[in-house]
Amino acid sequence: MAASKKIEGNMLIAQSGGPTAVINQSLVGAVMEARKNKEIRNIYGALHGIQGILDENLIDLKKESKTTLETVAITPSSALGSVRRKPTPADCEAIFRVLEKYDVRYFFYIGGNDSAETTHIINEEAKKAKYQLRCFHICKTIDNDLRQNDHTPGFGSAAKFVAQAFMGDNLDNVALGGVKINVIMGRHAGFLTAASALAKQHEDDGPHLIYLPERPFAMSRFIRDVKAVYSRLGRCVIAVSEGISDARGRPIVTLGAASKEVDSHGNVQLSGTGALGDILAQAIKDKTSITRVRADTFGYLQRSFAGCYSEVDAREAFGVGATAVKEALSGNKDGSIAIKRKPGPKYEVEFKRVVLRSVAKETRHMPDRFINKEGNHVTQAFIDYAAPIVGKLPKIGQFRRIPVAKQ
Amino acid sequence: MAASKKIEGNMLIAQSGGPTAVINQSLVGAVMEARKNKEIRNIYGALHGIQGILDENLIDLKKESKTTLETVAITPSSALGSVRRKPTPADCEAIFRVLEKYDVRYFFYIGGNDSAETTHIINEEAKKAKYQLRCFHICKTIDNDLRQNDHTPGFGSAAKFVAQAFMGDNLDNVALGGVKINVIMGRHAGFLTAASALAKQHEDDGPHLIYLPERPFAMSRFIRDVKAVYSRLGRCVIAVSEGISDARGRPIVTLGAASKEVDSHGNVQLSGTGALGDILAQAIKDKTSITRVRADTFGYLQRSFAGCYSEVDAREAFGVGATAVKEALSGNKDGSIAIKRKPGPKYEVEFKRVVLRSVAKETRHMPDRFINKEGNHVTQAFIDYAAPIVGKLPKIGQFRRIPVAKQ
Repeated sequence: MAASKKIEGNMLIAQSGGPTAVINQSLVGAVMEARKNKEIRNIYGALHGIQGILDENLIDLKKESKTTLETVAITPSSALGSVRRKPTPADCEAIFRVLEKYDVRYFFYIGGNDSAETTHIINEEAKKAKYQLRCFHICKTIDNDLRQNDHTPGFGSAAKFVAQAFMGDNLDNVALGGVKINVIMGRHAGFLTAASALAKQHEDDGPHLIYLPERPFAMSRFIRDVKAVYSRLGRCVIAVSEGISDARGRPIVTLGAASKEVDSHGNVQLSGTGALGDILAQAIKDKTSITRVRADTFGYLQRSFAGCYSEVDAREAFGVGATAVKEALSGNKDGSIAIKRKPGPKYEVEFKRVVLRSVAKETRHMPDRFINKEGNHVTQAFIDYAAPIVGKLPKIGQFRRIPVAKQ
Repeated sequence: MAASKKIEGNMLIAQSGGPTAVINQSLVGAVMEARKNKEIRNIYGALHGIQGILDENLIDLKKESKTTLETVAITPSSALGSVRRKPTPADCEAIFRVLEKYDVRYFFYIGGNDSAETTHIINEEAKKAKYQLRCFHICKTIDNDLRQNDHTPGFGSAAKFVAQAFMGDNLDNVALGGVKINVIMGRHAGFLTAASALAKQHEDDGPHLIYLPERPFAMSRFIRDVKAVYSRLGRCVIAVSEGISDARGRPIVTLGAASKEVDSHGNVQLSGTGALGDILAQAIKDKTSITRVRADTFGYLQRSFAGCYSEVDAREAFGVGATAVKEALSGNKDGSIAIKRKPGPKYEVEFKRVVLRSVAKETRHMPDRFINKEGNHVTQAFIDYAAPIVGKLPKIGQFRRIPVAKQ
């Protein structure tokens, strides 16, 4: 019987990596599910991910009211704080000792593939010490780049922000003309940039060109593409992933950047700077006769904008968190909760426990069938894939524009 | 009697300058009001402002369905297209000749102070020619810098976008720490940047510092301010107007910019580039020991993001458009429709016809009582002024964070 497999003890949950609009849904989903079960005595939240565990900086989540939990759920960003620290093997040992000290028997870590790896290592420590621990990773990332998942919690809401931004920005471009470049988050995976295509409601709507990290970026080809669109429509709206790189794998942003900040993973800083947009805008100004060229970088807005989230995404993020707790209480020792899409024309998903390691380390990319032959836009297959995750978008009104006869 | 003062003829309406989230409300407000009156025979829309008039590029707005009008009203950006052309005296003569040719007796121009000036000159042409014309300016601008107005249609919605962005971004900064700079539109007037303060719900919430074009910007003072906030909170969220300038009036963005694009009004390009944010972020990195410094430029999103508008702003924008037509039909020959706030604790406005010239040319700035003594934040008086225009903001949930005793 599943119930007999419940172990008594405390629960600890933490959040990691870049915040999303619905990462708190997963947190609250897990906490609400845990509060139903008396085997889980205390529910601790670690502040700022593994840093909070190492510092024993924990808060009591049983003392938060239902109203607070419900409001936190619809609030963007990580309510427990986050961290970008990649734990060393020594850190993982230290983390495990804290779990032991606080009699933590249920551990949940919400994050991306690095967090899955961290969860896996902590789990291995527990096994070595023959310490009974239920150890789960709860997936999140706006990048949508976790293996095993049809899509990840956080993607749908960020994609909705990107789509709404392009819906408006396309109309702004209709009104004033010129070329508009928008730079979107995504170092290696182009899903979020691709979501800009959901803004298209009419044939001539932007984005007219989409550049993804999955395809090598050549400046000469880019200029040719822009000229072609501009000569046809007198305007051009472009979506670009921050991570686009040339054929040799060098990020385009580094080709003109004055300073190169590198993070703890050895990655060049791509977000929180307008450099890539400015490089591309300058290239168009230099190599065409187009005078009005503008670039915006959506930056952190796309993962944290208050009041803009996908209902589907919010529901699924909650479900993934709750499922992790259910799995842990039903006797399963470890895993990551993945979103699987059921086959068939109707959009339906299920939450499945998968092996921790299968989500850790490597990420996934846009499959070829989602990218057009020219490598400068997406296919209908991508639209069909992404639309139900994003859900309802605002209605766009347009005049029929019946001309008045010239006199 | 007012009705006897109606003249028979056609109406022409156009939009100018930077689009807003509710500029179509004013357009639709005017068109719907006009459609009620048989004296107005045809309703023409000029595409791309005065350019469309000069090119006789007109569409028939009587042939658009009520449903289309209603959907266009809630759609951001200028449905008739816009223009950044400053008309010469010769242009204004040419425009007037087109109005004559199409028997236009009701002319409405939606735009900022430049558009008020254009409307005024066209009106003078009509007077000179003794041509009966009702000539009105309908105000709009996210900058909120039109004289005679308590606030302008478009500001409330852009302010709401800025506030929602800061609500989320403040939480992002809580989660990951460091310094975050957000650059907001506003060349000479800081109202929109100031609206970031509406995001503050708790004492320690960002924005912690706000820099406006109304006060000279000194880099040394900026660095000192940032250090002070950072040492107190371990983080800092900053709002900066794109137009901030040093004591000699030089825009800060020009101090480090590689290329300086100048528009038809002789203004340096401020929007559609991430340069200012990058300059400020670099200064903090160079002059402090703070390592995580990020900058985002909200760019065109703040005036065109689909699905985000203030209900109050939308209603008022519609009202201003409808009022212009009512005034024209009640026998008034010209003017600009301004929003006046009624005195008293309850928020109430009225739409008043003011003299065209009183809105044209010069703009207005943030009054001193809205800016704090140090020149790095706003006052409660500004919050009280702006809050009712922006309306309801999303609820932000926060844990009480009751600490678990260390073991």
